[in-house]
Amino acid sequence: MTDQAHRVVLAARPQGEATLDDLRHEAFDPPAPGDGEVALRTIWLSLDPYMRGRMDDAKSYAKPVSLGEVMTGQTVGEVTASNHPDFAPGDIATGMTGWTSHAVMPGDELRKLDPSRAPVQAALGVLGMPGLTAWVGVNDILEAQSGQTLLISAATGAVGTVAGQVAKAKGCRVVGVAGGPEKCDFATSELGYDACIDHHAHADGRAMAEAIAKVAPDGVDGYFENVGGKTLAGAIQNMNDFGRIAICGMVAWYGGQNLDQGPMGPVLWRNMLTRKLTARGFIIFDHWHRFPDFLDEVAPMVADGRVSYRESVTEGLEYAPKAFLDMLKGGNFGKTLVRVGADP
Amino acid sequence: MTDQAHRVVLAARPQGEATLDDLRHEAFDPPAPGDGEVALRTIWLSLDPYMRGRMDDAKSYAKPVSLGEVMTGQTVGEVTASNHPDFAPGDIATGMTGWTSHAVMPGDELRKLDPSRAPVQAALGVLGMPGLTAWVGVNDILEAQSGQTLLISAATGAVGTVAGQVAKAKGCRVVGVAGGPEKCDFATSELGYDACIDHHAHADGRAMAEAIAKVAPDGVDGYFENVGGKTLAGAIQNMNDFGRIAICGMVAWYGGQNLDQGPMGPVLWRNMLTRKLTARGFIIFDHWHRFPDFLDEVAPMVADGRVSYRESVTEGLEYAPKAFLDMLKGGNFGKTLVRVGADP
Repeated sequence: MTDQAHRVVLAARPQGEATLDDLRHEAFDPPAPGDGEVALRTIWLSLDPYMRGRMDDAKSYAKPVSLGEVMTGQTVGEVTASNHPDFAPGDIATGMTGWTSHAVMPGDELRKLDPSRAPVQAALGVLGMPGLTAWVGVNDILEAQSGQTLLISAATGAVGTVAGQVAKAKGCRVVGVAGGPEKCDFATSELGYDACIDHHAHADGRAMAEAIAKVAPDGVDGYFENVGGKTLAGAIQNMNDFGRIAICGMVAWYGGQNLDQGPMGPVLWRNMLTRKLTARGFIIFDHWHRFPDFLDEVAPMVADGRVSYRESVTEGLEYAPKAFLDMLKGGNFGKTLVRVGADP
Repeated sequence: MTDQAHRVVLAARPQGEATLDDLRHEAFDPPAPGDGEVALRTIWLSLDPYMRGRMDDAKSYAKPVSLGEVMTGQTVGEVTASNHPDFAPGDIATGMTGWTSHAVMPGDELRKLDPSRAPVQAALGVLGMPGLTAWVGVNDILEAQSGQTLLISAATGAVGTVAGQVAKAKGCRVVGVAGGPEKCDFATSELGYDACIDHHAHADGRAMAEAIAKVAPDGVDGYFENVGGKTLAGAIQNMNDFGRIAICGMVAWYGGQNLDQGPMGPVLWRNMLTRKLTARGFIIFDHWHRFPDFLDEVAPMVADGRVSYRESVTEGLEYAPKAFLDMLKGGNFGKTLVRVGADP
């Protein structure tokens, strides 16, 4: 730990689309761990769309990041010092330490990882929050049943990757939406999607509706919503009666962009009524109690290859802001990670 | 039955707002009842907002009325001839006979009424479809619990009247939204609403949001949606985490009106996510199996005055089109009825 510690803090609240000027990379001196606390050096940082919401000072499901405060985020790191009985130097642990090379955290807020079980960074993706989000969305929110047709937007993202494969394993027909032919090819050839629609090839909600109707001729029973925008506009026109929508994210609309591309409120509401739909917003922090059940089911599927996944890795914490902004524009492919430090 | 039979048919599909030219009053010769059929003369016709949707040729939860076909609607009538064992001349029955002075229907599609239990026209309102809609919305869709705050739009309409009183009886705090001081006064003084907001006094969604916040300082747990528009825009900003929305109607938007007054799709969706709301559209035809439970609970409340109600009666089937159009603009007060024929 002779390296200078460094981190990324919120420099300014974005005005609309977030820019590099809104985030600042800076050196800092980490404190020594107090009673019950653990010091870590970060190996992996997870980048996730929800972080964009924390940059705004608006009412949301979590407190915004303050100006000058380290950006929120989950990491995997190596314990370097510990005043907590469950942790010893050399242990690998995960927690919400933020965009930082070094952190001190209460041990009670960390979870120890078993490096022999899966690559440790899987705890940030397929076996972590995005995987749990996907699994809860498919099982508890969409209540997906064998034989149903599911539509999953951001199909090759960290959440969509797991949602699609979990739904296939349940016996659903699964249609994805992703940006570009490369992602769509990956969705069908690697992830097992029955079909994947390239939203770059469809200009608006009407075109998306036609594209969805073609590959889901019997309609959509469950829509896993990650994007909003024209994909939602197309999806709502294809929902079957009594269909369900799991509202997990709306990356197309983050930062106040593309607000004219989505369906109008009245169109949404009319379809909710006439098709007798149930839409439910969910935030994974309310569903952590499902984590053991999720791991029991999905960890073996990862181990034996039934669930595959892909990572987009950026080397160096100083490049995290650019990687994050790229991800918001769809530049990522699979789980977005930043390699912050070396393996032990 | 020497009178000439007459009816109201759909003359043209409305272009936006419906007009008197879209409906035609005409004479006709009713057929004789066949095997298992019953002939009736209509006493009461119910006018309901859902009828506006049937005038359009759009995908909805029910087949549109064809051009030249009698307008759909529920009536109460007197049996004049019967080839069905359950009905005899002089019986009073209700069914979907439409906007017509005389009808022939399969007896299996009629329900006999007991005139000693309640005024027979209650079968069209407080003890009929609107009452059931209100009861199902409060109990099965909003899952209202004692101590919660409910917001009910169209608070003094046929549905809102019952919804408010059923929710009060469950121990909810109930806030209504209605058009004009007379309706609001009726809501609080007669129906027991804890507060009622006059939407005429609030120009837009922002003003509605402030008005709702004032009378529901602890937020809204359940919103009974009958109107859309600025009321929805205000409601969504006051929903508590994990709140529920029962989407029953959106009369402010029928006929493609006021589309600019409602919340944008992105605003709706963002609040659905960040507040973790559940919104569910429902159509009462899917919930008829709840009718016996509803009657068991609400009929005694009507009999002993715990549930009161009000009727807007128009005399003469030929005036039904005007009464219907007035209702869509909020001109009604309570349950809208047309007196088509004399009591037996």
